[in-house]
Amino acid sequence: MHEAASEEIEIGRRVLEANEESARRNRELFARRRLFVVNLMGSPGAGKTTLLEKTIPALSGIRVGVIEGDIEGEADRKRVELAGASVTFQINTHGACHLLAHQIEHALGTIKLDAIDLLFIENIGNLVCPAEFELGESVRVMILGVTEGADKPLKYPLMFRKSHALILNKIDLIAQSGCDVKALKKNVRRVNPALAIIELSCRSGDGIEEWLKYIRENVKTTRSAKR
Amino acid sequence: MHEAASEEIEIGRRVLEANEESARRNRELFARRRLFVVNLMGSPGAGKTTLLEKTIPALSGIRVGVIEGDIEGEADRKRVELAGASVTFQINTHGACHLLAHQIEHALGTIKLDAIDLLFIENIGNLVCPAEFELGESVRVMILGVTEGADKPLKYPLMFRKSHALILNKIDLIAQSGCDVKALKKNVRRVNPALAIIELSCRSGDGIEEWLKYIRENVKTTRSAKR
Repeated sequence: MHEAASEEIEIGRRVLEANEESARRNRELFARRRLFVVNLMGSPGAGKTTLLEKTIPALSGIRVGVIEGDIEGEADRKRVELAGASVTFQINTHGACHLLAHQIEHALGTIKLDAIDLLFIENIGNLVCPAEFELGESVRVMILGVTEGADKPLKYPLMFRKSHALILNKIDLIAQSGCDVKALKKNVRRVNPALAIIELSCRSGDGIEEWLKYIRENVKTTRSAKR
Repeated sequence: MHEAASEEIEIGRRVLEANEESARRNRELFARRRLFVVNLMGSPGAGKTTLLEKTIPALSGIRVGVIEGDIEGEADRKRVELAGASVTFQINTHGACHLLAHQIEHALGTIKLDAIDLLFIENIGNLVCPAEFELGESVRVMILGVTEGADKPLKYPLMFRKSHALILNKIDLIAQSGCDVKALKKNVRRVNPALAIIELSCRSGDGIEEWLKYIRENVKTTRSAKR
């Protein structure tokens, strides 16, 4: 372990640099296309795919593309396709716990960007590493279930720090799960005072309108941006 | 990215080999000490620390040590100390998404192993990478909340494959979360037919006796093992 450490750090640095290069190219392409792109991150089971299932059909007039990141399988790609996504693309990492920008760059060579107004990239279910690798997205949105507990911002601070918006999901389970939402928000504020918080339940539908408004406004602003 | 790929694979291989060497030394030490050691893994918020809080005071006559793995902070170490752990040790990975065997080896230089009959290692909240790095433990136990959804074994197969026991937590939320437990178990069986499943709720206490029995029996068997 120890003799390899400096070499590891050097490799780690090069991986991050190569990722930033790819992310920059993706970002330029998205800007040129005036495409609003969401990098959606969160723990396994936080509700990433379910959120997309609720979002896609509700965004009438906005054509949605989804890049699905999963370790194995295509189950989530099929779910968002069924929900009405105009374009879908599956990335399987076969073990890796986060997406890399060059994987997105590769996907963008295939996806018909003319056919969409909005692109979601659903990252691997993981509250840690995806936060380290920007993909060229317009915004990073993280989703956390109240069932995960109020202490998570303090224990996994990087993702909370790097995100633009936090979706607090499963608010229908607040009472049953015993989650102290006030403490949770206080912990969020300690780590990232600027983080927008949207409370909703994908299951009951409560609060989802605020999220749809957030998306609609961002798509509109991006579409009308001067270049 | 691409030019670094073969070098990365080589480094990755050496990291895994060095980890296996450390894990082997830990395993020998644990065997010599007749110490039952649980590597406890699961997503953020699955209930790892809460399970320990319920387990430690219920194991009368068994002195428990806990090595807490967290990216940042000592909150969980304090919780298990309050719950009555005889010995605690905090590892902060400062970003890394899993524990490594050499970190445990280092901790074992400090912990008074004479003072405990059972050691829990609480891994970083992550359903992916901890499964790749054995620490020298007797068993790998994973914990999954029913709120995480029935599809998880198919999407994160490695941890389900590498675990000896699965604790299915939050069974008091089955109805509210809409989790299809039958489908979940079927998915577990597809990935690892031999995986022992213990259903419980840390919150309500239901099912916890089966888990305590599992621990008590393993501690007893390990204590009485011939060398």
